[in-house]
Amino acid sequence: MEIKEPREYVVKNLKYALNPRSIAVVGASRYPSKVGNKVVYELMKRGYKGKIYPVNPRANEVLGLKAYHTLRDIKDEVDLVFVAVPAHLVTSIVKDAKAINAKMLVIATSAFKEIGRGELQNDITEYCRENKLPLIGPNLVGMGSPYQNFNCGFIPYLPVSGPIAMISQSGANLLVALGTSQEDHFGMSFFVGLGNKADVDFSEFIQYAEEDPNTKCLAIYIEGLDSPEAFVKASKKVTKPIVVIKVGRSKIGVKAAFAHTASENPNTDEYYDKIIKEAGAIRVTTWQEFLDVSLALGYQPKLKGDNIVMITNGGGAGLLSCDHFERLGMPLHELKDISPLLAQKIRAYMPMFGSPLNPVDISGTASVIQYKGAFQQAFRDPNVDGVLGAICPTAVTDVKGVALAAIEVYESIKGLGKPFIMICQGGAECQEAIMLLREHGIPAYKTAEQAVNAMVALYKANKK
Amino acid sequence: MEIKEPREYVVKNLKYALNPRSIAVVGASRYPSKVGNKVVYELMKRGYKGKIYPVNPRANEVLGLKAYHTLRDIKDEVDLVFVAVPAHLVTSIVKDAKAINAKMLVIATSAFKEIGRGELQNDITEYCRENKLPLIGPNLVGMGSPYQNFNCGFIPYLPVSGPIAMISQSGANLLVALGTSQEDHFGMSFFVGLGNKADVDFSEFIQYAEEDPNTKCLAIYIEGLDSPEAFVKASKKVTKPIVVIKVGRSKIGVKAAFAHTASENPNTDEYYDKIIKEAGAIRVTTWQEFLDVSLALGYQPKLKGDNIVMITNGGGAGLLSCDHFERLGMPLHELKDISPLLAQKIRAYMPMFGSPLNPVDISGTASVIQYKGAFQQAFRDPNVDGVLGAICPTAVTDVKGVALAAIEVYESIKGLGKPFIMICQGGAECQEAIMLLREHGIPAYKTAEQAVNAMVALYKANKK
Repeated sequence: MEIKEPREYVVKNLKYALNPRSIAVVGASRYPSKVGNKVVYELMKRGYKGKIYPVNPRANEVLGLKAYHTLRDIKDEVDLVFVAVPAHLVTSIVKDAKAINAKMLVIATSAFKEIGRGELQNDITEYCRENKLPLIGPNLVGMGSPYQNFNCGFIPYLPVSGPIAMISQSGANLLVALGTSQEDHFGMSFFVGLGNKADVDFSEFIQYAEEDPNTKCLAIYIEGLDSPEAFVKASKKVTKPIVVIKVGRSKIGVKAAFAHTASENPNTDEYYDKIIKEAGAIRVTTWQEFLDVSLALGYQPKLKGDNIVMITNGGGAGLLSCDHFERLGMPLHELKDISPLLAQKIRAYMPMFGSPLNPVDISGTASVIQYKGAFQQAFRDPNVDGVLGAICPTAVTDVKGVALAAIEVYESIKGLGKPFIMICQGGAECQEAIMLLREHGIPAYKTAEQAVNAMVALYKANKK
Repeated sequence: MEIKEPREYVVKNLKYALNPRSIAVVGASRYPSKVGNKVVYELMKRGYKGKIYPVNPRANEVLGLKAYHTLRDIKDEVDLVFVAVPAHLVTSIVKDAKAINAKMLVIATSAFKEIGRGELQNDITEYCRENKLPLIGPNLVGMGSPYQNFNCGFIPYLPVSGPIAMISQSGANLLVALGTSQEDHFGMSFFVGLGNKADVDFSEFIQYAEEDPNTKCLAIYIEGLDSPEAFVKASKKVTKPIVVIKVGRSKIGVKAAFAHTASENPNTDEYYDKIIKEAGAIRVTTWQEFLDVSLALGYQPKLKGDNIVMITNGGGAGLLSCDHFERLGMPLHELKDISPLLAQKIRAYMPMFGSPLNPVDISGTASVIQYKGAFQQAFRDPNVDGVLGAICPTAVTDVKGVALAAIEVYESIKGLGKPFIMICQGGAECQEAIMLLREHGIPAYKTAEQAVNAMVALYKANKK
């Protein structure tokens, strides 16, 4: 439901959604296949340190914990009430949550506005707003933070810790991002599914993320933006980069967005383009781009100029990259135009059939020492704003060795504030190199185009 | 060097490049770090069944094999001469190859036209053409086929066997594709790097691939197209789908393409668009799209109409997909418009908060039985042309179970000739599901957009 600006009492209480001292799980079933049971199980499994109060009218114990028949039976303080019971039972639970002075209410339950029960949803929202009990949801998957070992929801993963706050209206896509996190080292500060966002809005999480010390970049997946004014207001105040993917632009997508999270999209897609631009956020098109760009903005400094030097042992990756740079409106410059001196110096790190153009092709025979020398020369040149490296796995390439050299160079030049991005696609050793690079804060990607998308976003972010 | 049409003597002899009975490796070093040594090592390691003749003027034995000081010292028949010696030594070896009546010559050596030695390269080409000794290269990485356990080059991988012929001008990108093959089950029939393609041209490999029983789809990476007429002629005759990625469209890319494989790009990119269209090939933009689309065309039947049904347990993947379908000019239709009966039937496989729109959202609680029922209903409906399935890993999703159900349904409906594509992104269990699906011939992808690209390509291929 629309708000005009982020509400202070909501922003203040969001800490109880992401770092609560105690949680009541209403609908905590004894049966492992049920959502309510999974929530309690995941809290325990991931090592949540606060108190857990399962609420179940027909149980005295759930997963070894004392269970309560109603919320009102809990005599201690409850920060967060997590609701996973059928929709028709929710209203009375909301009143109970207020009665016990809960700080934050999360309704995971589906079957509200998205299937036509808008009135029921609005009644609950109004009650929560009157009583200043912030409500996240309904129709969501959950939230958490790897920094707190906190996984509260219908979620089988805890992501690796890192700088990206993932705020997703879709639970399904949040799960995908969380799964990806572990497999591809996509580090998150916190994550939250907003679902129908009947009450708490994007703008309030945006304001919260600005204050969160672990967050360096906000990644936001939007199906419907019912409070554009608040979104723009909050985003403009934020110093951290914001990456947005907004779906529901297709004719059938408008209907699907409503059926999914009751999202209304009365405006054209151009309208959202304008709003997102006004907010100073970076809009991306595909899910892959969403993850790739967020990763770069989370880990790397902004790119201050467009003098990028690309160093590669494969001309193919070089060609794909320079075509894509031009496609995105930021063509590579020739090395001699960036720095005549650098073009000369870098010759020492390649065979005669290498190319000191840009991409700099140090050839398929490139050794770890040649890579290291070329990287160092490029970073140290005052005219160079950022470096894009690529490792192609030839029969003589020491993929891990080059990754380690890249990390060593990166550690030594971090102070210069120049972005470093890598490409490494191939067999298992290449995926290992990507993980190694990412663990050390260097965004590494499988394809040239992904890396170029990331580099260009670092430039766009600088212009905010 | 330009040709007007594929030459029969070349096409006939290409079998000696991909399935030779004997190979001489000129420049077969005793030192493991050298290219020539790697070539012999890989041939032996992968289980090449033919005869290997290392040629090295200073060795009597290489990797346990008898070595020959010159090609002329080999008294047996040699099908393929693979050359990996410095450029200035190549001319005399070419003459030796002719002298011993080799069927095919491959020059891996770099430092020809791409660094300004066009005359040397042209002299060799003219000699080979006069003597009807087909030459692949120079400046290439190698070739092979998993069906023959044949890996001939500077290549650390043998791909998994499958339907895709990978013809790449860039050695680096060929290596990337080969590495990807094992990691992502990207099945190839054969692979070849063409490098500077002084003599043997794309068109000749295209004609060869048409006859190759293992090939179902041709994937071609182009840096320069010096024989467009021959390319169009050969492609038009081919019944198998051809996927093309053509780089060197950017201003700096034109220079990089010359420095890499001596490719000349005198025409605008629109010209290549026209040529590729005229050839009846599908042009893709990014490397990821190149792999994804080739995979689908290799494994799946063409899509005969645009009545796609998408079945998903996550609304997010559904929204990303329907937006992307519309972006590509092939919007999804509502289920009730495709088949009113199907919309009714499919209701039985979802909870009340699911959505029978299209994407059909069977919800995050979907079981294996619900997936199976929904897939079966969709495939069996005569109005449905193809099915796109998506698995989102919720806390109750049996990811492997759904993948197995998808395979079971696919096996039972294969005869209908309707494409089946899957999406599955998340943790390790999702990557395992992707591999399992791919091993059974169902192209499965991490992101919605990749899968949609693949499905739309199957439709385009039908229109050739």
